[in-house]
Amino acid sequence: MGLLVVGSIALDSVITPFGETADALGGAAVFFSMAGAVLHPVQVVGVVGRDFPEAHLTALAAWKARYSYDLANRETLETRLGVFAEFRPRIPEKFRAARFVFLGNIDPELQLGVLDQVNEPMLVACDTMNYWIQSKRDVLLELLRHIDILMVNDSEARELSGDWNIYRAAHWILGRGPKMAVIKQGEHGALLVDSNTTFKVPAYPLQEVFDPTGAGDAFAGGFMAHVARTGDVSFDNLRRAMVYGSAMGSFAVEAFGVQRFESVTLGEVDARVRAFRDLVHFDLGGEKR
Amino acid sequence: MGLLVVGSIALDSVITPFGETADALGGAAVFFSMAGAVLHPVQVVGVVGRDFPEAHLTALAAWKARYSYDLANRETLETRLGVFAEFRPRIPEKFRAARFVFLGNIDPELQLGVLDQVNEPMLVACDTMNYWIQSKRDVLLELLRHIDILMVNDSEARELSGDWNIYRAAHWILGRGPKMAVIKQGEHGALLVDSNTTFKVPAYPLQEVFDPTGAGDAFAGGFMAHVARTGDVSFDNLRRAMVYGSAMGSFAVEAFGVQRFESVTLGEVDARVRAFRDLVHFDLGGEKR
Repeated sequence: MGLLVVGSIALDSVITPFGETADALGGAAVFFSMAGAVLHPVQVVGVVGRDFPEAHLTALAAWKARYSYDLANRETLETRLGVFAEFRPRIPEKFRAARFVFLGNIDPELQLGVLDQVNEPMLVACDTMNYWIQSKRDVLLELLRHIDILMVNDSEARELSGDWNIYRAAHWILGRGPKMAVIKQGEHGALLVDSNTTFKVPAYPLQEVFDPTGAGDAFAGGFMAHVARTGDVSFDNLRRAMVYGSAMGSFAVEAFGVQRFESVTLGEVDARVRAFRDLVHFDLGGEKR
Repeated sequence: MGLLVVGSIALDSVITPFGETADALGGAAVFFSMAGAVLHPVQVVGVVGRDFPEAHLTALAAWKARYSYDLANRETLETRLGVFAEFRPRIPEKFRAARFVFLGNIDPELQLGVLDQVNEPMLVACDTMNYWIQSKRDVLLELLRHIDILMVNDSEARELSGDWNIYRAAHWILGRGPKMAVIKQGEHGALLVDSNTTFKVPAYPLQEVFDPTGAGDAFAGGFMAHVARTGDVSFDNLRRAMVYGSAMGSFAVEAFGVQRFESVTLGEVDARVRAFRDLVHFDLGGEKR
């Protein structure tokens, strides 16, 4: 089923102990789509800020060309330059039937504008950040009434709710509209919380972390792509989606920018998902007492 | 099989947002034994510092009396006052056959002295702290050659190994003698690492944390008591021990000091262990693709 992401496309300046680069193609829509497309086709509407250097549009065009034609499971990239305050993402007609929609971290007014243009999504997930929580709180609270999953970092959940306890913060969010909250906790993994249940997946144990940039968006891409390819929004399947998301997040940090997704195979993804099971599963049945 | 703990007995001053107390009976040996004894009898050798106020020895005597006589599964408490520099814990003859030994956080010279007095332990686990890592590093490294599990906080593992990456830090520890490392990560749970495998258990989701004092020692008590009652040191059983330890750690923080262990039942422990399974388990078998 169709999966649509609307989010930023940017050139990331990345400096880590292992090296640096000033023009790595990045942004939420790029990480989301490159991770998600390993599992399922992704329809991308990219929001490019006015500060995006024109000289670098060639990199974007190259990316668009590469992933439109070289890889069968990547679909058309729509991009438009605009001033954020006046800009409204236009969702192409062929994308409006998407059953699964991810609203990357952009102005919540734009996120609401995207929702107006999609027809009957089965599941809408949404990211945001502290900047919008502070500057556009009312619009953000309105948006929460129209989405199914808020997917944010722990610091964002705490700031939005005003509660330092992450479980109370998650339930505060559920009281504002979303059926579920996904709380990303970086090196400590991620939580899926609904009104009855909490599911936790730890981060994958990595002895080398090269570049944490984009891990959260890669997580979202893996999560939503697994849901879209199965068409199953049961809590049990969303647990699996959390693990696929975590697998994609772990691949993201293994190399600079989106590099790792240029080579990762479905077999590697499935092997990592099984490794997550070995990491956390325990058996009580055979217990001696 | 016999389970021996050697560790501190102290009066804790605890101040939390929910209240404060200046004379709560605490210390590693107290938290360990009260949590562990829910599952299995615990033999306690308590180390009491010279700064322990004599006026409060009555509290200790009352504790000793209560848990020696009132609860069938708590065994004799041995205590001795002493100046740490000259003091050497004397392990009573009847405790020396213990097959499972936990060396709480005391001077590593004393920990080595305890090991000299036990006969043939099947499994020895050991805690330490930054103070000893800095002031008695050589003795501590000697101790590591004689224990099976080092059980420390993440900050201690990092300081001991000089490596910020917790998985590399764990493997550094394995290279110094222990077959396994247990890394306690507070609100983020705990790791069990051997040369081939990593197991992670998250902390239990709690919307109220009253008092984190002693959670790590309660974890150790649950872990070791589960191993002692089963007599099984396989990695699969140690995974279960991690979960029983995490359950005890979660009970510890639900009330001040050791209060929660005065009422917790085996049924409550087993229910919490099942809740941990629900928290982390996911099923890949029935996956639709």
